[in-house]
Amino acid sequence: MSTDARKLKKGWKVSMSKMAENTFNPIRTIVDGMKLTPNPDKDMIALSIGDPTVFGNLPMPVTCEEAVQESINKRTCNGYCPSIGYVESRQAVADYVSTPTSQVDATDVVLTSGCSGALEMAIACLADPGQNILIPRPGFSLYKTVAVSLGIHVKHYDLLPERSWEIDLQQMENLIDDDTAAIVVCNPSNPCGSVFSEEHIQDILNTVSRYRLPLIADEIYEHFVFSGFKYHSFASLSQDVPVLACGGLTKRYLVPGWRMGWIVINDRHDALSEVRIGLQRLSTRILGPNTLIQAALPRILRDTPQSFYTETLDYIQPVMPQGAMYMMVGIDMKSFPEFKSDVEFTQSLVTEESVFCLPATCFEYPNFFRVVLTVPKEKVVEACNRIRQFCELHFQPTSHINGNGCA
Amino acid sequence: MSTDARKLKKGWKVSMSKMAENTFNPIRTIVDGMKLTPNPDKDMIALSIGDPTVFGNLPMPVTCEEAVQESINKRTCNGYCPSIGYVESRQAVADYVSTPTSQVDATDVVLTSGCSGALEMAIACLADPGQNILIPRPGFSLYKTVAVSLGIHVKHYDLLPERSWEIDLQQMENLIDDDTAAIVVCNPSNPCGSVFSEEHIQDILNTVSRYRLPLIADEIYEHFVFSGFKYHSFASLSQDVPVLACGGLTKRYLVPGWRMGWIVINDRHDALSEVRIGLQRLSTRILGPNTLIQAALPRILRDTPQSFYTETLDYIQPVMPQGAMYMMVGIDMKSFPEFKSDVEFTQSLVTEESVFCLPATCFEYPNFFRVVLTVPKEKVVEACNRIRQFCELHFQPTSHINGNGCA
Ligand SMILES: Cc1ncc(COP(=O)(O)O)c(C=O)c1O
Ligand SMILES: Cc1ncc(COP(=O)(O)O)c(C=O)c1O
Repeated sequence: MSTDARKLKKGWKVSMSKMAENTFNPIRTIVDGMKLTPNPDKDMIALSIGDPTVFGNLPMPVTCEEAVQESINKRTCNGYCPSIGYVESRQAVADYVSTPTSQVDATDVVLTSGCSGALEMAIACLADPGQNILIPRPGFSLYKTVAVSLGIHVKHYDLLPERSWEIDLQQMENLIDDDTAAIVVCNPSNPCGSVFSEEHIQDILNTVSRYRLPLIADEIYEHFVFSGFKYHSFASLSQDVPVLACGGLTKRYLVPGWRMGWIVINDRHDALSEVRIGLQRLSTRILGPNTLIQAALPRILRDTPQSFYTETLDYIQPVMPQGAMYMMVGIDMKSFPEFKSDVEFTQSLVTEESVFCLPATCFEYPNFFRVVLTVPKEKVVEACNRIRQFCELHFQPTSHINGNGCA
Repeated sequence: MSTDARKLKKGWKVSMSKMAENTFNPIRTIVDGMKLTPNPDKDMIALSIGDPTVFGNLPMPVTCEEAVQESINKRTCNGYCPSIGYVESRQAVADYVSTPTSQVDATDVVLTSGCSGALEMAIACLADPGQNILIPRPGFSLYKTVAVSLGIHVKHYDLLPERSWEIDLQQMENLIDDDTAAIVVCNPSNPCGSVFSEEHIQDILNTVSRYRLPLIADEIYEHFVFSGFKYHSFASLSQDVPVLACGGLTKRYLVPGWRMGWIVINDRHDALSEVRIGLQRLSTRILGPNTLIQAALPRILRDTPQSFYTETLDYIQPVMPQGAMYMMVGIDMKSFPEFKSDVEFTQSLVTEESVFCLPATCFEYPNFFRVVLTVPKEKVVEACNRIRQFCELHFQPTSHINGNGCA
């Protein structure tokens, strides 16, 4: 025991673990690294972060408010609950997500700290260091953040803009190897705002089924689809593929700060019996989400009127995506030779027009930027006018202008 | 790419990751494995779990209720906040824990999902797989649960019952090696109910200081000390040792379900500048605790009257420990030859007397059991009478009866 050596060798400097070092959130890193100096003559319009509450134009449903009031008044929802959540709250989620073809009950639900907590737990439970998971490009950054920090590799499958952001299934299939532990799908999509058709979901499930791989379905935007489009959960369309469906109150109920998420275990052939135990074990690490919100869940999920959802969707309707709360806009970089990247493009957009959109490099998808749709209408119109003005100023026509322009 | 091999080889069975497999919570595993069949003629008294809310005899302070009401009414606390927490809430924690000799501000605080979340993050940030941390025996089980699941080894240093559960410093020192990344201390102690004296804390700090090791101080029971004893935080007694102090609302404010915890970064010599970044990064994984509670923090910490704390302590006063909400009781196993272990002893206590105490094997400390002190007084008296009866029935005097009997 060379403790003397230790004494002499080490200064006070304490280093962070490899896990912390490998926890890299590209949105935060890219955004924090951008030089954002808004034009002082124009008030700032942020179309960057998917938080529907920032402008105050989209309040949560009354049921949310009342149900939490009730939790407080009861005075019996302040103690420890089972680490996977109160059974009544889990049953309420089960009732909420069950469909005729995918029935689940309280034992199939794990409550988590936001959908982020659900995704972290699902990934940590299915994959070992050295294995890999497949994730979408463009896609939400957390999948990679969590996986890489745990020593799990990621491989990107492509979403195809020319096919309404459907998955390139052939390419996805080619990525699967013996070390693939799970496939992450996201529908409706952040950042694309696309909604998969029933047929496309079937095709995905058929592909996955051939390789006997479990799905992690990020369905935080479930039912958040514009009229004319229909939402189908992955679990409802397969009797075969085991699905860990991740969801939560965050987006549909407009309460991101409440950190209420869930994993729904859609087991088939008893394939997930071990994973079920694994999720239970992982839940004992931080002991589930806030009990006041848990106790409010049954009422929120049961009593929120359909009109609330449709009003939210009507609010953000007048744009072309199919679901979620985003739109991806391509930049024909050849026509904007002043800018080397989408990061520079969006940076200048702030400097000149005080409009902030997220460069899609944050989603591993350069040369696009993402617009958030939950902003008040006047602001959207104003922002669009400013973006148009910016584009007109910097646009330099090239020989072959073909689509993908700054719409 | 042997994807064909994969297709043929693998059935649907999905296995859990090594991390899930290694996440082992001994309290849950031991308790779930016990045969608990209460005597149907006696109503059950559970002295097992440290949840002060279960009997309804200890309500939370009025400030907690009012402050959360206010958060809801404001309607501005439902969105995403910075992943380490609102700055006002972090400042409130900083004000609450600062002492003349250990001043911190909002930048030194990370809000987490309960003290469990704080401990997980602190351990994950300081140690790498293959390294080790030192933890107390008997001690709270989560330290080991989290460490082992991350591939971090634990070494137990002993607390000495004959010295009011002080640390065996010589033995602790002998455990330190080149791979030791941090030392976890817990004061006041779960499960011992002991409170370290100022001198003992100084001795601990001096030892740790010689090895230039950071401390993780689990101070969730801070200020929870009975009259005649004084609480000192580790950070307040050293200008030298970097301390990550983990705390939260859970115990002192009697709201375990609210999952509001924190890490206070007590940096010295800039030793923790890298760790600070690491904690920030880790916080982006699940994005901090519930915002309604965060927004309520300033009022709760500022306005809860001193009388609330003293009333709680007065309530659980008439027993001999020094702090926290527990008492460890030794079993002289030789005098109870019917029972092979503390697990069997406590199991029979349930079968015959319907009193449930946690066997201290849960805390890596066989031949003791732990009693929770937040139970209503009549129940405690009743439980003590039943325990006495049980002991009288099973006690078989041995030649040398020396202390450690069933008190
Ligand atoms: C696709 C997707 N999944 C998960 C999340 C995280 O949701 P939560 O805030 O519930 O953790 C988001 C948030 O933006 C998201 O866009
Ligand atoms: C010593 C100790 N630390 C931490 C915790 C966890 O606290 P929380 O419920 O805030 O996660 C407990 C809970 O029993 C405890 O006894």
